Amino acid sequence: MLGLYIGRFQPFHRGHLRAIEWMLGRCDQVIILIGSSQACYQTENPFTVGERVEMISRTLRARKLAGRCLVLSVPDVNNNALWVSHIISLVPRFDAVYSNNPLTKRLFKDAGRKVSPIPFFDRKENDATSIRDSLPRDGKWRKMLPKEVADFIDEIGGAERMKEILGGDKDEG
Amino acid sequence: MLGLYIGRFQPFHRGHLRAIEWMLGRCDQVIILIGSSQACYQTENPFTVGERVEMISRTLRARKLAGRCLVLSVPDVNNNALWVSHIISLVPRFDAVYSNNPLTKRLFKDAGRKVSPIPFFDRKENDATSIRDSLPRDGKWRKMLPKEVADFIDEIGGAERMKEILGGDKDEG
Amino acid sequence: MLGLYIGRFQPFHRGHLRAIEWMLGRCDQVIILIGSSQACYQTENPFTVGERVEMISRTLRARKLAGRCLVLSVPDVNNNALWVSHIISLVPRFDAVYSNNPLTKRLFKDAGRKVSPIPFFDRKENDATSIRDSLPRDGKWRKMLPKEVADFIDEIGGAERMKEILGGDKDEG
Amino acid sequence: MLGLYIGRFQPFHRGHLRAIEWMLGRCDQVIILIGSSQACYQTENPFTVGERVEMISRTLRARKLAGRCLVLSVPDVNNNALWVSHIISLVPRFDAVYSNNPLTKRLFKDAGRKVSPIPFFDRKENDATSIRDSLPRDGKWRKMLPKEVADFIDEIGGAERMKEILGGDKDEG
Amino acid sequence: MLGLYIGRFQPFHRGHLRAIEWMLGRCDQVIILIGSSQACYQTENPFTVGERVEMISRTLRARKLAGRCLVLSVPDVNNNALWVSHIISLVPRFDAVYSNNPLTKRLFKDAGRKVSPIPFFDRKENDATSIRDSLPRDGKWRKMLPKEVADFIDEIGGAERMKEILGGDKDEG
Amino acid sequence: MLGLYIGRFQPFHRGHLRAIEWMLGRCDQVIILIGSSQACYQTENPFTVGERVEMISRTLRARKLAGRCLVLSVPDVNNNALWVSHIISLVPRFDAVYSNNPLTKRLFKDAGRKVSPIPFFDRKENDATSIRDSLPRDGKWRKMLPKEVADFIDEIGGAERMKEILGGDKDEG
Repeated sequence: MLGLYIGRFQPFHRGHLRAIEWMLGRCDQVIILIGSSQACYQTENPFTVGERVEMISRTLRARKLAGRCLVLSVPDVNNNALWVSHIISLVPRFDAVYSNNPLTKRLFKDAGRKVSPIPFFDRKENDATSIRDSLPRDGKWRKMLPKEVADFIDEIGGAERMKEILGGDKDEG
Repeated sequence: MLGLYIGRFQPFHRGHLRAIEWMLGRCDQVIILIGSSQACYQTENPFTVGERVEMISRTLRARKLAGRCLVLSVPDVNNNALWVSHIISLVPRFDAVYSNNPLTKRLFKDAGRKVSPIPFFDRKENDATSIRDSLPRDGKWRKMLPKEVADFIDEIGGAERMKEILGGDKDEG
Repeated sequence: MLGLYIGRFQPFHRGHLRAIEWMLGRCDQVIILIGSSQACYQTENPFTVGERVEMISRTLRARKLAGRCLVLSVPDVNNNALWVSHIISLVPRFDAVYSNNPLTKRLFKDAGRKVSPIPFFDRKENDATSIRDSLPRDGKWRKMLPKEVADFIDEIGGAERMKEILGGDKDEG
Repeated sequence: MLGLYIGRFQPFHRGHLRAIEWMLGRCDQVIILIGSSQACYQTENPFTVGERVEMISRTLRARKLAGRCLVLSVPDVNNNALWVSHIISLVPRFDAVYSNNPLTKRLFKDAGRKVSPIPFFDRKENDATSIRDSLPRDGKWRKMLPKEVADFIDEIGGAERMKEILGGDKDEG
Repeated sequence: MLGLYIGRFQPFHRGHLRAIEWMLGRCDQVIILIGSSQACYQTENPFTVGERVEMISRTLRARKLAGRCLVLSVPDVNNNALWVSHIISLVPRFDAVYSNNPLTKRLFKDAGRKVSPIPFFDRKENDATSIRDSLPRDGKWRKMLPKEVADFIDEIGGAERMKEILGGDKDEG
Repeated sequence: MLGLYIGRFQPFHRGHLRAIEWMLGRCDQVIILIGSSQACYQTENPFTVGERVEMISRTLRARKLAGRCLVLSVPDVNNNALWVSHIISLVPRFDAVYSNNPLTKRLFKDAGRKVSPIPFFDRKENDATSIRDSLPRDGKWRKMLPKEVADFIDEIGGAERMKEILGGDKDEG
């Protein structure tokens, strides 16, 4: 049994980790697929895909979960009708997709795939938004993240970066 | 005499059909060019290009107009200065372009092509927007569409899809 | 019953027309899908997609077949695993695909679609190649094409263009 | 000493010119890099990159500065983490980057490059916005531009174009 | 210590596995980066990136190496000068790159990164080519692959696919 | 009078310089447009576009010609029918195009533009090829280049790079 879990992970937070632990109770292996992989240094997407892989990989290794997870990524596709095919070509064959998002469900359903809900995991978007809002302002974001992710964000100067991103577009004028 | 008619057709409605009938009174053949072909499963663009071709094709066949129309498509071009050249490379040589849109007129004019107005067809955008607004809420959209299009939208579950699209972005978090 | 027929149509020749006539004996409607739509002004691909649409459209109209055919196009996709999904998003829902090409069969089969052979139509590639070889050299190409296509190629100076294409790459040096 | 100066130049105004003159007091040569090169015929980006090159080139030639400047361009890159590498591959090796934008500074810093501020040049964005606002309405834009640029905008009918751009999207409906 | 190992893995063979085992003797963790990720269903590139991930992942799990490896992928970049930047944005920060390829070494060196040789691993290209040559013809490929990869290729009908790929281009004519 | 001169300039050699000097006898200003701008670190295209700009710019400055030339670039366009439109959007309005290439002439002619021949400049391709062949082998390339270009190639280790490019593809295997 191989499960697929899709998110932007901007950044990877405690809610994401809890969802993965829940999936690992149901699946032998979980594919963690990082969406919008190209998006970075933006208000909604501060971190590069390499940084997001590193956040997730560090957290999983510290918890001895790395051997049962694959961390992969997919860029945005400008045609939503092709998004599921892109994913299928990029990842190993999977048995289940986990998501609470209505459009994700629809796109997989129209491609003949069933999507399962993640029971308790319904406030994730709020979390990610709160974390990004907190990042340039106060320390609240720290306690919403696995320790490994909070440390990583400190190492790369993530709070400082967020301030600079809010400072404006790179070639205005 | 070959006319070119450009629209997004999200969805193809009675106003579009009326415009085509008017053009067929002036031209031997009309090229119906579906713009933003890649856009689908979005609030402003619920239908795929294949679905839009099917809506138009069914409507034209039912009215014995298919033999005098070509239904083609063009994706968005990220550089507006190249849009007219893209169109010219994609369609047969045409004699007239019909549009009431100021920017379309300008882009064809800057490429040395004259654009003719469509006399009575000035409320089309409002129509398409009203139809998309009505789709997930009530049945008003049905009477704004040719019967073939309304039936098609029922077949593919278009009203249900619109609700799911409004339910959120596919990889938030 | 709606059939799908894929080719590059560089140019559209008598073999292609014969195959379409055969399909129209089995289907209500045939989608003629022009592949490698972006390719043009090249040795293997002399004609633009708009020109290929015009060749096909003129031929079908002269034979009263236009009302039962849709002429659409698809650009090359740099990932073969996405080619069938691209096609599905671009065209109306179809019941049968006709092709004698092993890779086309495989790609549709891996996407869960059956492909039917075209019985007598096995020398088409040789034909298209012979026509392109003849184009800049002699008049043999004329008798291998429907009259409408031969006339069209004369109108746009196709033989002359072929010579210029063979004359070299556009920004060598 | 070779300096790099990045902007969108929609349009090239007195503030931009003053900044270049200041840089030429510090550098032997200045690379003027036009960003978002693909953007044009849009509210925020009315002019094509060719037109922007022409505005800048005419202004520099009239002031005998053309021999010490290179005018180059870069399209938007959909991944901000690749923007600096794109620039490095597109322009000659440079010694200094001039910018007051926090994100530009960050992206160059993360690529190991120092960015120098432009002392007095801090109201540029307001200027460009005011000019674009004025363009379809009144003549105020003229006095904010070098004479060569104002003349050029008259030649190409820039005020008229701006009205048409505001008239709506090219394939709505 | 984190090592980066780049290959196309068409398919993943014993030589690749041996190289990874050697790297794991020198590094805590190895990033296995699958290049030309978009290429598939081609003579030189029969397998999709998802299939290549599955080959590698199965082999590593069977040998208890999965927890110390990350399997990621990168598509071809049409500008070689941007290839290293693409890789840097896609993967966690790494300490060493392993390759015997002169151009890979050069591109990393020009980006300020040192590349280390893989001592005994110098016949890999021949291996991959021999395996692809054998695939549609005989059973020799089996013994050149880890058992998990050979089984996987049987499951997906890889030998049969290779024959179909050799059967010709998908939209010739 | 503004002339347009298109080439790949891999590398910029004495023949190119002689052609530009000839054009400057006929035009006030010459736009030197570097084609295939994205191509680099390849056998046929060893140099990045930034390096080619630097070669040309140094040579022109040393001869006091920089003030009368614009050095711009255009990437390959995957649809030849759009190539001229791309160029028109990228450069200032020009009066004449100079080329001896039959396909370039045809593409500009089909876009309604006349192309003028360059009288004595007919062996350029042979030159560029000979230079690239000589680069990794002997010193013959030096005397075929303007001194500034030969010095530049030494500075960036161009002969060494050429050997490494010939050493093989970057992610074979």
